[in-house]
Amino acid sequence: MGQTFLPTDIPTLPPQPRNRQVIIARRPSAIPQPEHFEIRESAIPEPAAGQFRLRNIYLSVDPAQRGWASSEANYAPPVALGEPMRALAVGVVDASRCPGVAEGDYLYGWFGWQDYAVAEPSAILLRAARRLPLAQFAGLLGINGLTAHLALTRLGRPEQGDTLLVTTAAGAVGSLVGQIGHILGCRTLGFTGSDEKVASCRDRFGYDMAWNYKTVSVDEVLEHAAPRGVNIFYDNTGGSVLDLVLRRMAIGGRIVQCGTASVAGWSPVPMGLRNEREVLTRRLQWGGFVIFDHIKSLENSADQLTAWYQAGKIDLQLEVLSGIEHAPRSIRDLYNGTNTGKRLICLA
Amino acid sequence: MGQTFLPTDIPTLPPQPRNRQVIIARRPSAIPQPEHFEIRESAIPEPAAGQFRLRNIYLSVDPAQRGWASSEANYAPPVALGEPMRALAVGVVDASRCPGVAEGDYLYGWFGWQDYAVAEPSAILLRAARRLPLAQFAGLLGINGLTAHLALTRLGRPEQGDTLLVTTAAGAVGSLVGQIGHILGCRTLGFTGSDEKVASCRDRFGYDMAWNYKTVSVDEVLEHAAPRGVNIFYDNTGGSVLDLVLRRMAIGGRIVQCGTASVAGWSPVPMGLRNEREVLTRRLQWGGFVIFDHIKSLENSADQLTAWYQAGKIDLQLEVLSGIEHAPRSIRDLYNGTNTGKRLICLA
Repeated sequence: MGQTFLPTDIPTLPPQPRNRQVIIARRPSAIPQPEHFEIRESAIPEPAAGQFRLRNIYLSVDPAQRGWASSEANYAPPVALGEPMRALAVGVVDASRCPGVAEGDYLYGWFGWQDYAVAEPSAILLRAARRLPLAQFAGLLGINGLTAHLALTRLGRPEQGDTLLVTTAAGAVGSLVGQIGHILGCRTLGFTGSDEKVASCRDRFGYDMAWNYKTVSVDEVLEHAAPRGVNIFYDNTGGSVLDLVLRRMAIGGRIVQCGTASVAGWSPVPMGLRNEREVLTRRLQWGGFVIFDHIKSLENSADQLTAWYQAGKIDLQLEVLSGIEHAPRSIRDLYNGTNTGKRLICLA
Repeated sequence: MGQTFLPTDIPTLPPQPRNRQVIIARRPSAIPQPEHFEIRESAIPEPAAGQFRLRNIYLSVDPAQRGWASSEANYAPPVALGEPMRALAVGVVDASRCPGVAEGDYLYGWFGWQDYAVAEPSAILLRAARRLPLAQFAGLLGINGLTAHLALTRLGRPEQGDTLLVTTAAGAVGSLVGQIGHILGCRTLGFTGSDEKVASCRDRFGYDMAWNYKTVSVDEVLEHAAPRGVNIFYDNTGGSVLDLVLRRMAIGGRIVQCGTASVAGWSPVPMGLRNEREVLTRRLQWGGFVIFDHIKSLENSADQLTAWYQAGKIDLQLEVLSGIEHAPRSIRDLYNGTNTGKRLICLA
């Protein structure tokens, strides 16, 4: 698998004499802003024995990058100052000194915010051996789609008729969680941050009900929309909405903690309602999900997502920015909600 | 099963012409105090068709009774004012109009704080068909022991070499959690509230390390005692100790929320550190446990606990108070820590 060329579009790659890299120039204390990055140019690197060189086509922008750029304790060590920003990307191999990786292979993996990556096979997450356009490949089978699918099924454990509530419901992860939940028989409720996104939730992503959390009482809408409680809370935001939803969970409910986007900083740790009594009396199961614990399941998950997409069951909202110069501001935009859909940066 | 008399001691039951009942006279707003109860006498009740009458021998005192007496939302409706306090008890059937229940049967179930209970078979949790003295039966196979065993194995999922941390480590639940964890191959650490109890943890309950949380820095002792993090946190207390331990959990750690004894009241909900980022980045699994969700597993659990006890692997600390007049103060004592071991009230 993966030796065959399968993406259904072949981008034209402009000549690129130098390797442009978006490096971390200053350490962010919270959400990375444009001024924390610089774009630097260097010589195009050569692969050593056992390595390959890949020309990036689509750079991924993901909320998890906030954590990778931070010096706060996290599940991965922070990117060193002066190094290119850690990122997932899709590209094409243009030189290989590595068995199993051939020139012309399209790969998804840890290739960073740069034109060219030199890497070893351990950096590969998926091969683009599926009949999808490359942008859709990066947008559906990126960590947003794989996370949506695996976190919902493994920690959320949806059952027919469950009420599933999603925060950042129109986002790159949330919009897929809602649609997958719908496919799996859930009643889907979504919170998002603007009236336009509420409309997307209802019109594109199949939510049964959706609200702008800024203009409603979270507690009141749930009292009416989920009178028997929320069975699965897929939470990308944390914060005070989480505290309210916990008190509207059904007995035995599952909370999938996939992000904490609403909390601006963790030093010092902010305060909130004590929640252990809700965990106890409602017998909740509250779990944290990080996709990189599930590497062995990515291929199967990608196959399932592709099948649903090809069957017309998933509406994928992509926001493709053209040019590496958009990278430095792109994480900030995810957190202030100005993005619409899964954000990619196209270098072709 | 259950028709045979098996307890290894036969108590002498004094004549009791009236039924003494410990009723809820005033609704507690937090931990029930003696003044919330009254002892009233009434005629000994007669069983109707389908019912049996049981003479209580050991009344159980359990931390969960705080919730049953409270009008705060809980997993069970509160006991009505004027009704006998909801409680588990062990007794002997002295009249039956119910198939499957015979005079002379020893039963454990929902028989309340009273001399005589009239009940139906649905009130029975276990039959005393095991070779244990009755007090040990009530103290080991009561909800404390069943909870310790089932919550640790089902939510804690111990693996050989795991570091298991227990709060109220010398208590009726905690002392058994520590010993069961030890049997299952865990390294066991305990927090308790007095130096005497620390000694019990080490000398009787097999903890590898134990501390008086009032006189140490929770964070510092864990830094040294669990440098690679806590794999299982069996928490009976909640509160600020929970917040600290969460930040010392290993990746993939399990938190078993079994009680919230350190939090005096929940109206208004007290504030604490926001914990969702710890759940996420450490990929914790935080679950609430209530034994009554596991009714079908009680017999097997009781068999396992009995086997360990008979093999000399479990040291059971009982505190038996003689006389129903001790009941009204007995829940408060659990919460102020003056009890030593599993508390029973003997009516024989």
